[in-house]
Amino acid sequence: MNPVSAPEPSSRDAARRRFLKGGVALGAALAAGAARSVAGQPAADDPSKVLGGPVRPYGERSRFEQTVREKWPPSKTDEFGSVLTPLDETLGIITPSALHYVVQRGGLPDIDPRKHRLLIHGMVDRPVILTMEEIRRLPSASRILFLECQGNSLTEWRAPTGKSVEATHGQTSCSEWTGVPLSLLLREAGVQKNATWILAEGADATGNERSIPMAKAMDDVLVAYGQNGEAMRPENGYPLRLIVPGWTGNSNVKWLRRIAVVDRPYLTRMDGVGQPTLTPDGKARQLQFVMEAKSVITFPSGRQQLPAPGFYEIRGLAWSGRGLVRRVEVSTDGGKTWRDAGLQAPVLRFAHTRFRLDWRWDGREAVLQSRCTDETGYLQPTLAELVGVRGLNSLYFNNAIQSWKVAADGSVHNIHA
Amino acid sequence: MNPVSAPEPSSRDAARRRFLKGGVALGAALAAGAARSVAGQPAADDPSKVLGGPVRPYGERSRFEQTVREKWPPSKTDEFGSVLTPLDETLGIITPSALHYVVQRGGLPDIDPRKHRLLIHGMVDRPVILTMEEIRRLPSASRILFLECQGNSLTEWRAPTGKSVEATHGQTSCSEWTGVPLSLLLREAGVQKNATWILAEGADATGNERSIPMAKAMDDVLVAYGQNGEAMRPENGYPLRLIVPGWTGNSNVKWLRRIAVVDRPYLTRMDGVGQPTLTPDGKARQLQFVMEAKSVITFPSGRQQLPAPGFYEIRGLAWSGRGLVRRVEVSTDGGKTWRDAGLQAPVLRFAHTRFRLDWRWDGREAVLQSRCTDETGYLQPTLAELVGVRGLNSLYFNNAIQSWKVAADGSVHNIHA
Repeated sequence: MNPVSAPEPSSRDAARRRFLKGGVALGAALAAGAARSVAGQPAADDPSKVLGGPVRPYGERSRFEQTVREKWPPSKTDEFGSVLTPLDETLGIITPSALHYVVQRGGLPDIDPRKHRLLIHGMVDRPVILTMEEIRRLPSASRILFLECQGNSLTEWRAPTGKSVEATHGQTSCSEWTGVPLSLLLREAGVQKNATWILAEGADATGNERSIPMAKAMDDVLVAYGQNGEAMRPENGYPLRLIVPGWTGNSNVKWLRRIAVVDRPYLTRMDGVGQPTLTPDGKARQLQFVMEAKSVITFPSGRQQLPAPGFYEIRGLAWSGRGLVRRVEVSTDGGKTWRDAGLQAPVLRFAHTRFRLDWRWDGREAVLQSRCTDETGYLQPTLAELVGVRGLNSLYFNNAIQSWKVAADGSVHNIHA
Repeated sequence: MNPVSAPEPSSRDAARRRFLKGGVALGAALAAGAARSVAGQPAADDPSKVLGGPVRPYGERSRFEQTVREKWPPSKTDEFGSVLTPLDETLGIITPSALHYVVQRGGLPDIDPRKHRLLIHGMVDRPVILTMEEIRRLPSASRILFLECQGNSLTEWRAPTGKSVEATHGQTSCSEWTGVPLSLLLREAGVQKNATWILAEGADATGNERSIPMAKAMDDVLVAYGQNGEAMRPENGYPLRLIVPGWTGNSNVKWLRRIAVVDRPYLTRMDGVGQPTLTPDGKARQLQFVMEAKSVITFPSGRQQLPAPGFYEIRGLAWSGRGLVRRVEVSTDGGKTWRDAGLQAPVLRFAHTRFRLDWRWDGREAVLQSRCTDETGYLQPTLAELVGVRGLNSLYFNNAIQSWKVAADGSVHNIHA
C-alpha cells in the first residue's frame, strides 16, 4: 500500500534543511557518531525485502550498538579495575543494568544463590539466617534510585582531567531496585534497646564492611535482590545488596551476607579510615554518607563533536542524596546567565532526574554549565566555592559544577571556568 | 572483623521458624524454585575466600539466572514465533529489555542505523527524510509506558487454557521509552488542514502498517529510539518505533520507516481487517485502539507451588490505556470479598502499576483474583460480564478478571471462577 507518492528529491532536501534550521551538514552528522557493524555481513539496504532472523529467548542488543563501560582508572592494566557508566550515551533515567558503574576491589564473586545466606545477629533478640528463597517471599518494595561512588569526579579538584563525562562523572547510575525493607527484617529479629548502628558485610574477597546508623537502617534501606525487573547483575551485588537511598555507593554493600546489630560504628576502611575526607586543617572526616546535590551536562560533553552551528538539545542528569531535585539551571556563557532547564516527569526522590534545554549554537566558543537545587534549598556549588570550604586535601564528595567548553570548531572539552 | 559472635544453631533455627511464621518447610523451599547452574563448575562455598573474576565491559546476568521468554503459541515449531514476558519472574514495573514480549510475523530485521531513514510525507507542506543522527539530536522526552498486544489473554475466553501467567498474560511489558514527540515532527512538516489520520509503516518483511487518528498523533505519541536507557532492542523495533501510550501493541509500529499524513484510515490488516473484533451479531469492530484497564496476580500464579501454609505476599501488575490505575482490589475467596492492595509509588499514567497484599494461606483451597479501577472510574470486568457484552466471537481485547486456584497441596491453577 502506498497511499501517497514519495516527494521529489528537491523538496525533500529543502524540507530537511528547514527542519534542522539550517545548521546541520548531513554528511558530517553521518560521519560523526555512526554505529559500527561487528560482523562481516552488512545489513540489507531494504530490510523489508528480506525475511528476518529468529527472536532470541533472552534478548540481546543490536550488533550495531557497541557502547561499553570504560575501565577506571584508565592506567589500570589488570582485569579487576572498576568501570564507568557512559553517561554521554545513556537515555532517560534508567541506566541499563549492563552499563551500571562498578567499583570493586576483589573481582567479581561467582555466587550460587542456593548456597547464599543472610545472617542477622548481634544485639537482637532473635538472630536469623535466611535463604534467598525465604527473602524473596517476604513483603517487598521497589524504588527507582541513583547510586553514586563518593569517588565520582575525584580527578577534577585541581585541574580538568577527565576527557569525557564518562571519565568525570561516570560513577553514578540509576536503577529500579526491588527488595525487602531492612526495617522489617530488623523488627522481626528484635533490635535491642542499646543498639544504635548496623554493620553490613559483603561476601566478596574484600569482605567489604560498612557501618550505618540505626535511624537510616530503620528508615528507607532495602535488602535488594532485583534490579530493573530481574535479579541484580553480578557486578551490582548478586544475589543480595544493601540499598541505602541517597548515600555513598560503598554503604550500599554488595554481595550482602551479614548484618550485625551493634552499639557503635566500627570504623572500617570504607567508614573512612581507608577513605577519609581531609579538611584544610589536615583533620579527617569519617562516616560521611550523604551524596549532596549534583548535576552534569551529558550532551554536549567532553570528546563530543558538534558538526555545525544550529539547533541542539542540551541534556543532562541531576540528583541529590537529600531527596528531590527541585530545579536545574543551565548556562551557556560560563555562569554569567542561567536558564531553567525542563525536568522530565516523574521527578523522584533519590533518583536521577533528566533535564533538557533547547539551545541554538551560533558557532562561537561557548562554556556550558548546569547547577541544581534540591528540596532542601541547597544549590550545587562552583568548584571555587567547594574548595573554599573543603580545601584541596579532599579526594571524595566532589559535587562541583562541571564546565564544558564548545570550541569554534565544535569540539567539546573539560575546563575549569 | 567480627564484632559479635555467631548465634548457636538452635537459636538460629528457632529464629527462622518464627520469622516465616511457622509455615515454611525450608527443604521444600530450596527444592522448589532454586536456580540451576549451567556451567560444569560449581560456585565456591564461601566466595569471600576466592579472588573474583573480571568485570565485563557490557554486563551480563548471573549464570545462575536462566529465565527466558516462552514461545507463543506453544505449538509454533519454526523460529519465527512470538515470545512472552515471564510475568511470574519479573520484579517492580520495569520489564528487562531482554524479556520484553515480542509479536512479529516476518522475523527479526537486521537494520543498520546508518542506512535507516524516516520519511514523513503525504498531506504535509514540507515532506522530510530524517537520518537516525538527525532524529536523536531533536528535542526528546522519556516516559515509562506499558505495551500490550490486543491478543493478550485471547486463549482465555471459553475455558482456562494458559497454564502460567506468562501464557495467559505475557503479552504485556513496560519500559522507559525515549524519543522525539511525533507532534514536533508533524508540526515541522506542516500538516495540511484536511489531514485527519496518519499511516505508520514498518521496515520489516511484513511491511506492517497502522492507521492512527491525527488527534492522538498530535497528543502524546513518541518516535522512540531508546528503551530502558539505551538503544531499543531489535525485537522491539530497533532503531525506531512509534510509541502510542495506552494503545494496542500493533499501533506501536516497530522498525518505523514511514509516516504518511492522510485524510482517512486505510483499513490495513492491523487496523482490523485482518484482526477484527467480532461482536455477538457477527459484525466486526475495526480501528479499536485503547487497552482497557486490566490486572493480574503474578504470584501466586499458575504452575507455581506454595511449599506450605503460612505467609505470602500476593503480587501483581495493573495497567490502563485510559491513564492512571486508581485502585486494585484482591480477593482470596473467588470474588466474595475484596481487600485493597498496596500500589507501589510512583503510579504513572499508561505504565504498569505493581500491587502487593500480605496474605496468610491457611492451607485450604483458595481462589485468588485481582480487579483494578482506573482514573475514569472503569472497573475491570469479570469474564461473564465481558462475554455478556462482547459475546464469544471475540478473540481480542480480553481484559477480564483472572482467577488462580490454590489447591490444598499448594499447587496453583488457572480456572474460571
